[in-house]
Amino acid sequence: MVGAGFGGLETVKGLAGAPVAITFIDRRNHHLFQPLLYQVATASLATSEVAWPIRSLVRDRREVTTLLAEVVGVDPDQKRVRLEDGASITYDTLVLATGARHAYFGHDEWEPFALGLKTIEDATTIRRRILLAFERAEREADPALRQAFLTFVIVGAGPTGVELAGTIAELARSTLAPDFRNIDTGSARVVLIEAGPRVLAGFPDDLSDYAQRSLEKLGVEVELGQPVSDCTAEGVTYGEVRLATRTILWAAGVRASPAAEWLGAPFDGAGRLRVAPDLTVPGHPEIFAIGDTVTIAGPDGRPAPGIAPAAKQEGQYVAAVIKARLRGEAAPRPFRYRHEGSLAQIGKRRAVIDFGWIKLRGALAWWLWGIAHIYFLIGTRTRLNVAINWLWIHARDQRSARLITQGRPIGTELS
Amino acid sequence: MVGAGFGGLETVKGLAGAPVAITFIDRRNHHLFQPLLYQVATASLATSEVAWPIRSLVRDRREVTTLLAEVVGVDPDQKRVRLEDGASITYDTLVLATGARHAYFGHDEWEPFALGLKTIEDATTIRRRILLAFERAEREADPALRQAFLTFVIVGAGPTGVELAGTIAELARSTLAPDFRNIDTGSARVVLIEAGPRVLAGFPDDLSDYAQRSLEKLGVEVELGQPVSDCTAEGVTYGEVRLATRTILWAAGVRASPAAEWLGAPFDGAGRLRVAPDLTVPGHPEIFAIGDTVTIAGPDGRPAPGIAPAAKQEGQYVAAVIKARLRGEAAPRPFRYRHEGSLAQIGKRRAVIDFGWIKLRGALAWWLWGIAHIYFLIGTRTRLNVAINWLWIHARDQRSARLITQGRPIGTELS
Repeated sequence: MVGAGFGGLETVKGLAGAPVAITFIDRRNHHLFQPLLYQVATASLATSEVAWPIRSLVRDRREVTTLLAEVVGVDPDQKRVRLEDGASITYDTLVLATGARHAYFGHDEWEPFALGLKTIEDATTIRRRILLAFERAEREADPALRQAFLTFVIVGAGPTGVELAGTIAELARSTLAPDFRNIDTGSARVVLIEAGPRVLAGFPDDLSDYAQRSLEKLGVEVELGQPVSDCTAEGVTYGEVRLATRTILWAAGVRASPAAEWLGAPFDGAGRLRVAPDLTVPGHPEIFAIGDTVTIAGPDGRPAPGIAPAAKQEGQYVAAVIKARLRGEAAPRPFRYRHEGSLAQIGKRRAVIDFGWIKLRGALAWWLWGIAHIYFLIGTRTRLNVAINWLWIHARDQRSARLITQGRPIGTELS
Repeated sequence: MVGAGFGGLETVKGLAGAPVAITFIDRRNHHLFQPLLYQVATASLATSEVAWPIRSLVRDRREVTTLLAEVVGVDPDQKRVRLEDGASITYDTLVLATGARHAYFGHDEWEPFALGLKTIEDATTIRRRILLAFERAEREADPALRQAFLTFVIVGAGPTGVELAGTIAELARSTLAPDFRNIDTGSARVVLIEAGPRVLAGFPDDLSDYAQRSLEKLGVEVELGQPVSDCTAEGVTYGEVRLATRTILWAAGVRASPAAEWLGAPFDGAGRLRVAPDLTVPGHPEIFAIGDTVTIAGPDGRPAPGIAPAAKQEGQYVAAVIKARLRGEAAPRPFRYRHEGSLAQIGKRRAVIDFGWIKLRGALAWWLWGIAHIYFLIGTRTRLNVAINWLWIHARDQRSARLITQGRPIGTELS
C-alpha cells in the first residue's frame, strides 16, 4: 500500500481481518486531512490538528508494517517497488494511492511566487507569507509598496480558493484589525481570480452565485473569466491588468503523482493514470491505483472528482475486491462513484452544501459543514481541540496559530 | 522595549496607564513560553500552544506600537537603536530584554550535531530528529547502526535536560511502543550526561536525589561528573566513553545576546551585561537591561537565575522605576530578586518543587506543576487545549504533535 492519504488509509482499514500482511509506505509520517489544510494556512488551526502519525492509526493492526519511505519506481515483472535509498520491497498485490501535487499549466517558473497548498509545509509557508506581509506593511513608508504588501491574490475559485479567499478577508478585517497601528488592515485587498465563468464551478448555479455574493460581502474582489498569464515576485497579470502583490496563492491546477510513468500506463492531461473499471492498472490485475492519481469515469460519464470521498470510496472498493479474491469469490461489479455532496465554507458564518436532492446555504450550512468536518477528523482529542479553536474564531475572531515560523524572521523572501 | 519574552512583556504590562508611547520590538512575531518548549520538542504539545502573537497580547494598548524587526546595535549618544534594514528608532528610555541563546563552551563546531532548545524552530527540529531516528531504526538492518539511531543523548542535567530526558524515555517506552514492528522502542537508550556532581544542581540535595531516582526508574541512564569532550555526527565522547548516537540534545550552556557589546558595557563570562542595582546600564541611566541577557546579584550574593520569574520581577521593577521618574518621585530602592520556587517535571507522573519553606515531590508535585504552568499560559483557549493534550498523555500515553515536518521527509540529515 503506497500512500497514506484518504485512499490508502481507507484501503488498509477495509482489509482489517483479511489474511494478508500489509506494508504501508508513505514518504511522510502523517496522514493529512487536506480539506482543512487551508485553516493551517490562515493561522486558524495548528498543524497537529489536521494530521496524525500513520503508524498510530494502525497501531492495533499487527499485520500492518508502516514504513517511512519514498517510492521512486515499480518493476511489475519482478513485482517490487523501488525506494529512494535503493532498497526494494516485493508484493503480491500493489495498491498505489500516491495523490497529486499542484501544477502551473506548464509555467513551473511561477512556482516560487505562486504558493500551492498540498502539504503541511505548504500551509505553514503560506501562513508565514500572509502574516509577514502585514508585518512588512506596518513598517513600510512607500504607499505603493505598502499596498502591494496588503494585496493578496488567490488564483482558482474551486473550494480551496474560495475557502482561502474568504478566510484571508476575515483575517484582515476582523482578526488582525486591532493589532496594527500604522496600517488599516481592513484596507487589504483580497482578489480571487478564476479563468472560468463561475466560482465553485462544480456546484449548481444558484449556490455558485450565493458563494460569490458572500465573498463580495466579505470584501473579496472576484474576477471571473480571467486566466492568469504571468506571476512574478512583484505581482500577477490577468487580461490587461497587472496587479502589484507580494502574496499569490495558487489553487488552480493539480498534477498527478508519477504512478502512470512508473508503470508505463495510459494517462490523461494532468498525468492521472487511466484505470480499468475495477480500478486495476490495464494489463496488471495485481496492481490497483486509486485517488487523486487516477482518472475513472463517474456514473454521468465525467471523471470522478479529486476529492476525499472519491478516494475513500475507491479504497473501500479495492479492499472489497482483494478480500473477494482471497475468498476465491467472483469479482464485485465495476466501481461506481457515488457523489454524496459538495461542501465549501465561505468565512466563519457561511457555507454552501449541495447534496443533490437538497441544497443548503448560509449559517445552517456552516454549522453542518463544521459538524461534518469534525466528525471526519480522527480522534476525540483532535475533535475537542478543533471545536474549541473554531468556537474561539466564531465568537471572538481570535485565531490560534498566528505564528511566523521557519525562514529568516524578517521576511527576506518578501523583497 | 526590545524583546518580547517574559522580561519585555512584563515591562510593557507594568507600564499600562503611564503617559508613555511604547515601541515594542522583537525579531519574532510571537511571545514564547519557553518553560514548555521541551513539550513541543517531544511531540507532546503543538507550537501554537506555547506561543502567542505579540501584537495580539497588546492589542488594547493604543499607545503600544509593535514592530517585527531585529535590533543590530545601539547609539546611546544619539539615543537610537539600529535595525537590520538600516533604519533607526529613537528613544527617550530604552529597555533591552534580548535574552540568551544556547552555547557550546567554545565548541561552536558542535552546533550542527548537538541541538539546542531556545526557539520554536529548535523545538520542531528536535522533534523531527527524534521521530526520524525511530523511523530510520525501523528500516535499518545493521544492528550497530540501529542501536545508534535508538540512542538519545541529552547534555546538561538542569531542569531542561531532566525534562527532555524523562519525556523522551516515556515517548520511547510508552507512546511509540505499539507503533513499530521491526524494533522494540523500549530498548532505546536515553543517556543524560552532566559535568557536575548532581542533576538539578540548583535544587536541594534530597530533591536532586529523588529526581535522579525517578529518571532511572523511567530507564534514563544518568552520567554525573562527566563533561562532554566531543560531539560529532556519529556520537558523543565523555571521559573514556565514546557513545554512538544520532541524536544529541544540548541543554548545557547559554550565552547572552550581544546587548553588552552594543553598549560597550561590562559583562561576565557568558556575555551577560553587568547592570547596576537599579537595572540600568552603568553610565546610561536612561537604558535598562533585564532578563537572561544580564547578570545581577541576588540577595545571597549569587546571580539571579536565568529563569522566567526573575525576568518578570525585573520587568515589573523597571516599569515601576520608569513610572516613578515620570511622576517626579524618588527612585525605588534597588532591585531585589525574590526566589519563589523551582519546579521540574520528570515524566508524566512526577515532579519536584522547591518552595524553600516546603518541598514537594511525586504525583502531588506533578499536578501542582501542571496547574501552575496552565495558570501562567496566556488565554483561556490555550489553557483548554493544553489541558486536553496533557490529559490525553496522562491517561492514554498518546502525544498529539507527532509530526515530522520541514526538511526532506526521509532524513538525509541522519546519515
